[in-house]
Amino acid sequence: MLKVAVLGGSGYTGCELLRLLLSHPDAGVTAVTSERLSGTPVSDTFLNFRNTDLRFEPMDLKVLAKKADLFFLCLPHKTSQQTVAFFHEQGKKVIDLSADFRLKSAAIYEEWYKTSHSYPSLLKEAVYGLPELYRDRIRKASIIANPGCYPTSIILGLAPVMNKDFVDPDSVIIDSKSGTSGAGRSPAQPFMFCEVNESVKAYGITVHRHTPEIEQELGNIAKKKLRVIFTPHLIPMDRGMLSTIYIRLAKKTGLSEIRDIYKAFYASEPFVRVLNDGVYPTTKAVKGSNYCDISLFMDKRGNSHTLIIVSAIDNLLKGASGSAVQNMNIMYGLNETAGLTTSPPCP
Amino acid sequence: MLKVAVLGGSGYTGCELLRLLLSHPDAGVTAVTSERLSGTPVSDTFLNFRNTDLRFEPMDLKVLAKKADLFFLCLPHKTSQQTVAFFHEQGKKVIDLSADFRLKSAAIYEEWYKTSHSYPSLLKEAVYGLPELYRDRIRKASIIANPGCYPTSIILGLAPVMNKDFVDPDSVIIDSKSGTSGAGRSPAQPFMFCEVNESVKAYGITVHRHTPEIEQELGNIAKKKLRVIFTPHLIPMDRGMLSTIYIRLAKKTGLSEIRDIYKAFYASEPFVRVLNDGVYPTTKAVKGSNYCDISLFMDKRGNSHTLIIVSAIDNLLKGASGSAVQNMNIMYGLNETAGLTTSPPCP
Amino acid sequence: MLKVAVLGGSGYTGCELLRLLLSHPDAGVTAVTSERLSGTPVSDTFLNFRNTDLRFEPMDLKVLAKKADLFFLCLPHKTSQQTVAFFHEQGKKVIDLSADFRLKSAAIYEEWYKTSHSYPSLLKEAVYGLPELYRDRIRKASIIANPGCYPTSIILGLAPVMNKDFVDPDSVIIDSKSGTSGAGRSPAQPFMFCEVNESVKAYGITVHRHTPEIEQELGNIAKKKLRVIFTPHLIPMDRGMLSTIYIRLAKKTGLSEIRDIYKAFYASEPFVRVLNDGVYPTTKAVKGSNYCDISLFMDKRGNSHTLIIVSAIDNLLKGASGSAVQNMNIMYGLNETAGLTTSPPCP
Amino acid sequence: MLKVAVLGGSGYTGCELLRLLLSHPDAGVTAVTSERLSGTPVSDTFLNFRNTDLRFEPMDLKVLAKKADLFFLCLPHKTSQQTVAFFHEQGKKVIDLSADFRLKSAAIYEEWYKTSHSYPSLLKEAVYGLPELYRDRIRKASIIANPGCYPTSIILGLAPVMNKDFVDPDSVIIDSKSGTSGAGRSPAQPFMFCEVNESVKAYGITVHRHTPEIEQELGNIAKKKLRVIFTPHLIPMDRGMLSTIYIRLAKKTGLSEIRDIYKAFYASEPFVRVLNDGVYPTTKAVKGSNYCDISLFMDKRGNSHTLIIVSAIDNLLKGASGSAVQNMNIMYGLNETAGLTTSPPCP
Repeated sequence: MLKVAVLGGSGYTGCELLRLLLSHPDAGVTAVTSERLSGTPVSDTFLNFRNTDLRFEPMDLKVLAKKADLFFLCLPHKTSQQTVAFFHEQGKKVIDLSADFRLKSAAIYEEWYKTSHSYPSLLKEAVYGLPELYRDRIRKASIIANPGCYPTSIILGLAPVMNKDFVDPDSVIIDSKSGTSGAGRSPAQPFMFCEVNESVKAYGITVHRHTPEIEQELGNIAKKKLRVIFTPHLIPMDRGMLSTIYIRLAKKTGLSEIRDIYKAFYASEPFVRVLNDGVYPTTKAVKGSNYCDISLFMDKRGNSHTLIIVSAIDNLLKGASGSAVQNMNIMYGLNETAGLTTSPPCP
Repeated sequence: MLKVAVLGGSGYTGCELLRLLLSHPDAGVTAVTSERLSGTPVSDTFLNFRNTDLRFEPMDLKVLAKKADLFFLCLPHKTSQQTVAFFHEQGKKVIDLSADFRLKSAAIYEEWYKTSHSYPSLLKEAVYGLPELYRDRIRKASIIANPGCYPTSIILGLAPVMNKDFVDPDSVIIDSKSGTSGAGRSPAQPFMFCEVNESVKAYGITVHRHTPEIEQELGNIAKKKLRVIFTPHLIPMDRGMLSTIYIRLAKKTGLSEIRDIYKAFYASEPFVRVLNDGVYPTTKAVKGSNYCDISLFMDKRGNSHTLIIVSAIDNLLKGASGSAVQNMNIMYGLNETAGLTTSPPCP
Repeated sequence: MLKVAVLGGSGYTGCELLRLLLSHPDAGVTAVTSERLSGTPVSDTFLNFRNTDLRFEPMDLKVLAKKADLFFLCLPHKTSQQTVAFFHEQGKKVIDLSADFRLKSAAIYEEWYKTSHSYPSLLKEAVYGLPELYRDRIRKASIIANPGCYPTSIILGLAPVMNKDFVDPDSVIIDSKSGTSGAGRSPAQPFMFCEVNESVKAYGITVHRHTPEIEQELGNIAKKKLRVIFTPHLIPMDRGMLSTIYIRLAKKTGLSEIRDIYKAFYASEPFVRVLNDGVYPTTKAVKGSNYCDISLFMDKRGNSHTLIIVSAIDNLLKGASGSAVQNMNIMYGLNETAGLTTSPPCP
Repeated sequence: MLKVAVLGGSGYTGCELLRLLLSHPDAGVTAVTSERLSGTPVSDTFLNFRNTDLRFEPMDLKVLAKKADLFFLCLPHKTSQQTVAFFHEQGKKVIDLSADFRLKSAAIYEEWYKTSHSYPSLLKEAVYGLPELYRDRIRKASIIANPGCYPTSIILGLAPVMNKDFVDPDSVIIDSKSGTSGAGRSPAQPFMFCEVNESVKAYGITVHRHTPEIEQELGNIAKKKLRVIFTPHLIPMDRGMLSTIYIRLAKKTGLSEIRDIYKAFYASEPFVRVLNDGVYPTTKAVKGSNYCDISLFMDKRGNSHTLIIVSAIDNLLKGASGSAVQNMNIMYGLNETAGLTTSPPCP
């Protein structure tokens, strides 16, 4: 039984991670931390855990280091840096759900996160934890930088074609819609029920911090530096993320030919489903599951044809804690779908 | 591997049942029927099942009888009667999720359901499938009448005290609130999004068909014929059912003493959680799980003290498909919690 | 043009009050205060007011006293006491939306609000602002204690029969369901979108502060001291409040006879609608309006018949700001429905 | 008092129109039709109208022609054609909320609506009822083709710059999000509460019938035939529509310069608000009002700068019935904002 600890477990991501790990066949949670809630039962905070005995404990790294082999970090960016470094030095493995080790360039990190990066050397060692792109490297990694939710839905949506000569890699426009759990559990006026309910709004236009992460990974595939236009929106639901992605074709290419490329690319992926012609993804169909549903459409009406990709994930699962567990499974040679196999409840 | 079939699988109850059965360690779904959708993939109707190959088939009873050992019936009442009778005659076991075999009296059935009962003799054989009351009989049953959602939340809330001399069994008032999935999947104007959203209403006052079922079971415990006042409400959410139950005390009795009675009554129950003093159940804490959370309050301000019981379930799980699977586990000597162990996702 | 000021205008009640007053034909808003937001445009906080030039100003009572004739106080209880006293001394009229002057007994106020009352003499002068009960006194009042939202929905539901000998005034059980705007606009974890959405819960059982207010007014009508059982619930919607009220009959009486009593009682009321036999109130039908919809049902199944009353209001209108404007209209001899006449939008 | 009739008044658009007209100072509703509900009180269908005596009547055109001067048509497309023609022949004025007279080309109408147009000559006479573009022609019109909801939010978002040389008119990508009331009131499985709630999906990609309407009007401004990419989405809310619009700049131009162009363009418009730098529109801020809120953003990160326009309307008001009333006010020389002046309720 693999011993794992969850650091910063009092938010929605920590809660979802605990949920998955507590019913995982091969992993056991030995510690979960929260400075603020230290000493209190997890079930007092997360009522869905009324059947567990776990208690939050303080974040004493030395004590924790003895308790587990793998550490999931659900800490704020910046704080995560030194914690990752500490466990790495102790020879422990880390899956970091913050943004601290996602960007390979410390300079770009500093530009977008407005803070310094103290462990640039570890940036090289960290593996970007998107199994569909980096499964082999994840297998051997000791530090996983778990991808952001928006980047996951977007990179999976574009990966099969970003290196194809029939697309224009500089034409990407992404319009994403997210449920509210992505904003976290801390009280804040804009996320109060009466503010979010019966409303939709865009936010963070041109400044959202997931932008460089998207550009880094799409650029890696396209083998060129590129820029994307990315507009996130907040919609009135708990969970779910839908990205509608527009990319101009450089060369007219049939939709079914492109769909075949997608189907081949994801043929052996357990969690990516390329939908058939005309089938629309919905976030409801992936809510509560680790799936990413992708569907392809083509706009041939204008002069330049445009591929329209719609991808749907559960932001707390494939967009965060689910992919973290998938990464754990890969790192430890477990069945990749262990703990992630239930069909999502519907409705 | 136990072979099971789901008849009438195109509604929300059927969908939830399939979800549980498809990831059940000891059961395999060999058939799922829908007259209307016959021949089409289940995954075309329920997008959350995009990873299964099941197809709906027509309801040809003779063909079906050869395919499975246990039949889950999610059919309309009245239709269910003869189907239960057919499989029973074939020596098969049946879990009937309709109301057809819940009431022991054919006369009361006919009064409330405005239709005749053609198999009164089977009413005696059928076991009311509430494991917390009838586990031993369920073990040996060949026909299970799976309880209604409202009755489950209410009977579990009152069972520990209905036979106590300190309550007045004739004083029960129940005010229940249900999410919308209980109304089913068929299109109907009152359940359109814009009608349900941002609204709450009562319905079925004094005429809701779950009333005689509640009275039968509470009367059995109290060992007397009794009547309850039952008011269901529809609220804008997918799943969840909260019952607030008022029962006058016949004799002043301390709340903690009563809570001890509840804790003892449910001590070995895997799916009933009696909450501590002052903790309020929420449907969110049980959404997606088979739990029933119960909390007790006492109003001592009036002349006669009143016990206020709040109970929360997921109407599609403990209120329907979850309890059906629990009943299956008991009937076949499986681990009672098999297929029902995941903590609910939150939020 | 009547000059009015709104003190404590940065919450949902203040916002709704401003909305009504800004389109009122006979009143003009001369000031709106918020300590925290002082100096900022109202339209920065309430985006629905993008078309007004109002700015929040600090709560300098002497300055304010010169600006208006009538003061609406949306301040926390306790704070409201001295503010009411100040304006009263200046000869100004006040409509206080806090709880400070609703209870006629300072002792009961202190018991429930856990704080002293410094102006017990003004309690006598204040008029409980429920026009359906106290219209004549409101006309001449200088201090209006604007009723709480729950009490409004409940008192209107029971007023026509509380003094009738065919009801048992000591048997009242009230089960209320409220949207989330009643909890206010300040950030708090329990009212975050992801906590409220897809959930329902009871709260404040036996301790909710609206209890003595309900008991005071029902007791006044019944001409006896009485106690009620009151259970509020939080449901996932912005606005709306539904109270389901149970009162045992002391003497069997026909439902249509009772409905006639209600229809007569409210015959000339512009904002109370007694619905016909079998019609259920919904909060959606009153959302955005000052109406209270009431419907009556009878449970004759038990030994003692029980009258079940369902009443629906918009908690921010008839439950707060709408009734405040109605009170203003009465105090100043304006058309009682002025500024309150639009039908509610639907859906 | 202007006499008006609403034909096809049993849907959400008809309901909203009635609501506005019933409190309009200068118009009186003399008839409202519904074949299906003929003879029944409007208040039985729309509970928010419990205070009116209107009854639905059958659609007998000759009878109706005598009852009113202006006819609002909320009929399905195709049916609307002959009804418009009939009233026009009778010398009556018509505001048609269907799509039948929006497209100036019968051929394009037939291509998108898959049905013939029997009155191509009237297409020339009909005026596209967007006051911000065609106020002078609306004043003299006898047939108004009331714009679609999506086109309204999009055309208002692009009108000020479509004829400017600094934009590339062929680069328009529109990603719109709509509440569910736009789908109408007829029961349909995809719009049931449990299907829409907690989900988001795209639909109608490249085939939505509002596309040619958008292209016609933007093309008129740009003085060239153009094509747009338009992706509508359904989100879980009753009302509200947000369009996020991307248009590439042909020539680098400052954001504040562009905002000045918008502010000048809409300077005297009563219902269009151009928001300040960095302020995001939300549908909540316009819900229940006739406003269109527009905000501008610039993405300068790529090689070609892109203007991002976000516009928000209430789909039932500025997107349908509100603009119909605005058109009526203009046609009859009434105050353009009459009946449309209330600030929207919030939350």
